[in-house]
Amino acid sequence: MTLDSAETLEARLRAIGAERYHNNHPFHHLMRDGALTKGQIQAWALNRYFYQSRIPIKDSALMARMVDPDLRREWSQRVIDHDGTREGQGGIRKWLHLCERLGLDPRSVSREVGILPATRFAVEAYVHFVRERPLLEAIASSLTELFAPSIIGERTTAMLAQYDFIDEDAMAYFKDRLFQAPRDSDFALDYVKAHADTTEKRQAVCDALVFKTDVLWAQLDALYFAYVDPRLPPPGAFRPGETEAMP
Amino acid sequence: MTLDSAETLEARLRAIGAERYHNNHPFHHLMRDGALTKGQIQAWALNRYFYQSRIPIKDSALMARMVDPDLRREWSQRVIDHDGTREGQGGIRKWLHLCERLGLDPRSVSREVGILPATRFAVEAYVHFVRERPLLEAIASSLTELFAPSIIGERTTAMLAQYDFIDEDAMAYFKDRLFQAPRDSDFALDYVKAHADTTEKRQAVCDALVFKTDVLWAQLDALYFAYVDPRLPPPGAFRPGETEAMP
Repeated sequence: MTLDSAETLEARLRAIGAERYHNNHPFHHLMRDGALTKGQIQAWALNRYFYQSRIPIKDSALMARMVDPDLRREWSQRVIDHDGTREGQGGIRKWLHLCERLGLDPRSVSREVGILPATRFAVEAYVHFVRERPLLEAIASSLTELFAPSIIGERTTAMLAQYDFIDEDAMAYFKDRLFQAPRDSDFALDYVKAHADTTEKRQAVCDALVFKTDVLWAQLDALYFAYVDPRLPPPGAFRPGETEAMP
Repeated sequence: MTLDSAETLEARLRAIGAERYHNNHPFHHLMRDGALTKGQIQAWALNRYFYQSRIPIKDSALMARMVDPDLRREWSQRVIDHDGTREGQGGIRKWLHLCERLGLDPRSVSREVGILPATRFAVEAYVHFVRERPLLEAIASSLTELFAPSIIGERTTAMLAQYDFIDEDAMAYFKDRLFQAPRDSDFALDYVKAHADTTEKRQAVCDALVFKTDVLWAQLDALYFAYVDPRLPPPGAFRPGETEAMP
């Protein structure tokens, strides 16, 4: 398939998602199938907090590179979604609420105690990518949102059904994302389809999405390695059951 | 132990190494004990190539931030060690030679085909750290070299004894490192002991070394996860036995 049009680009992007999005990862399958322990879900929520916390940072870095006020204004909604318009609101706050409902100390989570180094490295690679690559590629790296509604739907339904320590209130973060993610990804998809006007640029857009799927996949690899099999958390990482001992 | 002197700093740095250096990692133990397959050692050499290839880049980034010509001149020896003074020389070349002797295509290795994303993220985190942090911390992050001679000695002896596909010629890289690493780490240790003149700076030096041990540890975590247990290489990663198929 030659990347000779906006339509072939979109088809390729969707094929990348079908193959490489982290809904294909064994850690997600365990979560969906109700096969994770509470400690494993705590580890997931803790590490995923680090990712959530860096999203508005990467979006701000992206906005800092946008010369067009219309584009910045459009993008700024993403930062507001995560940070809220008042203290106590926004996606990051809701994520901390999920952590708390899972039995973690939200102050300890927000101080990033016990996060896996591999989580930091993957997430920071994403922030650096957005800061350093051409704007087109930086925007394209957000396109994993195209595939988010399916994984959120699957995850939310499964978690509510399978884990008695999770309820709708704990999962409030995902309720918002179900309408935010399609709005954001529609905009980004239209943008890359309009601005990737050569085969080379379309290839760069695809490579950016592959990079981003690697960022998400590597986070679940690290969780699986440390907390599922062979269960070898690196020095200094969170250990389930030791939450009380976290300073 | 309060970090109130150069001596307590050095003691703390050595304690960090004793606890967190990657000679404690199960992947290294398997290598040392002759328990790895050739494919697993290929995966190690391939991924470690990416690390090697970025060392002179991080050292150049560090030199670009040094205002003192004497310091730059001292540091430049590290870049020369890796790049050589003529084509066909230097540590990176010797690493490619090791890869070739292990049955990998060195052109494919140097094009970075099949490297684990987690390797990239960890190594790039190191480059960014050196580029962005205060010079003292950037220099301190090189201090894992303090602990290199022991792991190199252990690894070289074991690999020559245990694996019939490895000989002294293949291991030439490590022979050089056995005298380069102590020279480099002596200099860096003297530098941080002289320049970390407050408790706060000594703590920052220790944190930089912890960060760097995380960078090395995460690389072995990723190898273990993908190639030892549970053997789940992520999409696009090298698969042992498929070296011929690598483009």
